[in-house]
Amino acid sequence: MTNRALVVLSGGQDSTTCLYWALDRFGAGRVEALTFDYGQRHRIELDCAGQIAKHAGVLHATLPIDTFAALGGNALTDSGIAVEGATGNDLPNTFVPGRNLIFLTFAAAFAWQRGIVDLVSGVAQTDYSGYPDCRRDTIDALEQSLNLGMERTFTLHTPLMNLSKKETVELAQDLGALNAMALTHTCYNGKRPPCGQCPACQLRANGFLEAGIADPLISA
Amino acid sequence: MTNRALVVLSGGQDSTTCLYWALDRFGAGRVEALTFDYGQRHRIELDCAGQIAKHAGVLHATLPIDTFAALGGNALTDSGIAVEGATGNDLPNTFVPGRNLIFLTFAAAFAWQRGIVDLVSGVAQTDYSGYPDCRRDTIDALEQSLNLGMERTFTLHTPLMNLSKKETVELAQDLGALNAMALTHTCYNGKRPPCGQCPACQLRANGFLEAGIADPLISA
Repeated sequence: MTNRALVVLSGGQDSTTCLYWALDRFGAGRVEALTFDYGQRHRIELDCAGQIAKHAGVLHATLPIDTFAALGGNALTDSGIAVEGATGNDLPNTFVPGRNLIFLTFAAAFAWQRGIVDLVSGVAQTDYSGYPDCRRDTIDALEQSLNLGMERTFTLHTPLMNLSKKETVELAQDLGALNAMALTHTCYNGKRPPCGQCPACQLRANGFLEAGIADPLISA
Repeated sequence: MTNRALVVLSGGQDSTTCLYWALDRFGAGRVEALTFDYGQRHRIELDCAGQIAKHAGVLHATLPIDTFAALGGNALTDSGIAVEGATGNDLPNTFVPGRNLIFLTFAAAFAWQRGIVDLVSGVAQTDYSGYPDCRRDTIDALEQSLNLGMERTFTLHTPLMNLSKKETVELAQDLGALNAMALTHTCYNGKRPPCGQCPACQLRANGFLEAGIADPLISA
């Protein structure tokens, strides 16, 4: 396979696992990473993404998106809003409408310019948050709109789509990505070492626990 | 009909016609306009959009998008690149990959927050530029991805999709939008009065000529 792949790299556990999945699938030297600076509350994610890309030896670019902050009213960009989990059928207040649609569309535009047609995203419909733009049917529809709208044949790879957190940890181990996990950021409260209390920390901890693998971020 | 509509308003002839189409269809007081400040070379478009919205008596918001300028390499945001028309089967160098996909996705996110499900865009597949994200099949696929990704039932209205420029001018007249046309901006060279030479000016002039209607922007 001579294709090159572009991985949307947030600096978290899932996208980092995807980066190593892409290296395994497409080969060293044929993978690039793209991070979005969209005004996330925890700037440490951007530093982590850069360190992870360097650790993995891949080209890395960061694109700004100032629009989400201007849209406002959500907890991931607005430091005045407390993070809460999903309650009942409501979307959690970390929901940014269409965030992954935007990320993947800009990633496709970036890839378009670079002659890359394979895009990799760490979205998972098993994710506890239930973001509707993480589901495979959404990704399929987006893939079609990108292909029609940019006249390319992109493939949107979502290797974690149906994996539990336990299985994602096991995949990371299989791919030799565990060392890189020490560089990732997960905590919704922006703590390093992680707070261990927020939903994101707990989800991560449970995944490592169930896989019977020590989290390098904790044990480091 | 009690729905409200959001019109993507660039400040040009087509989106202004759509604004009046929406006022006719949804009623005064039930239409809002959204403009994107994406680093366009001619800032005058943003002023025009504001004036048009004021003239039409609709709420108007402007959202920034700094990502296209960061993506670079295209003539609509990069003042170092000359504008050229499409040659043969090539896309014109004003092509920003996925620009309308991004505009409509952010418009949907904005509408989502405001409880609006009817979006209106002036895209037309008869447009000489041949942007693939202006075609109805792309819009249909995008509509599906937005509806799945944001769990709403958006309708993407494209009233100009199959109209020639002549027919768009006639529609503007029928809708009482001709006075507002004096406030629009079309010229790719950013001139007011328009240069009359660039492809956009010529397309506009031909439309008014074929419709047998004086362009208020020229005759003003």
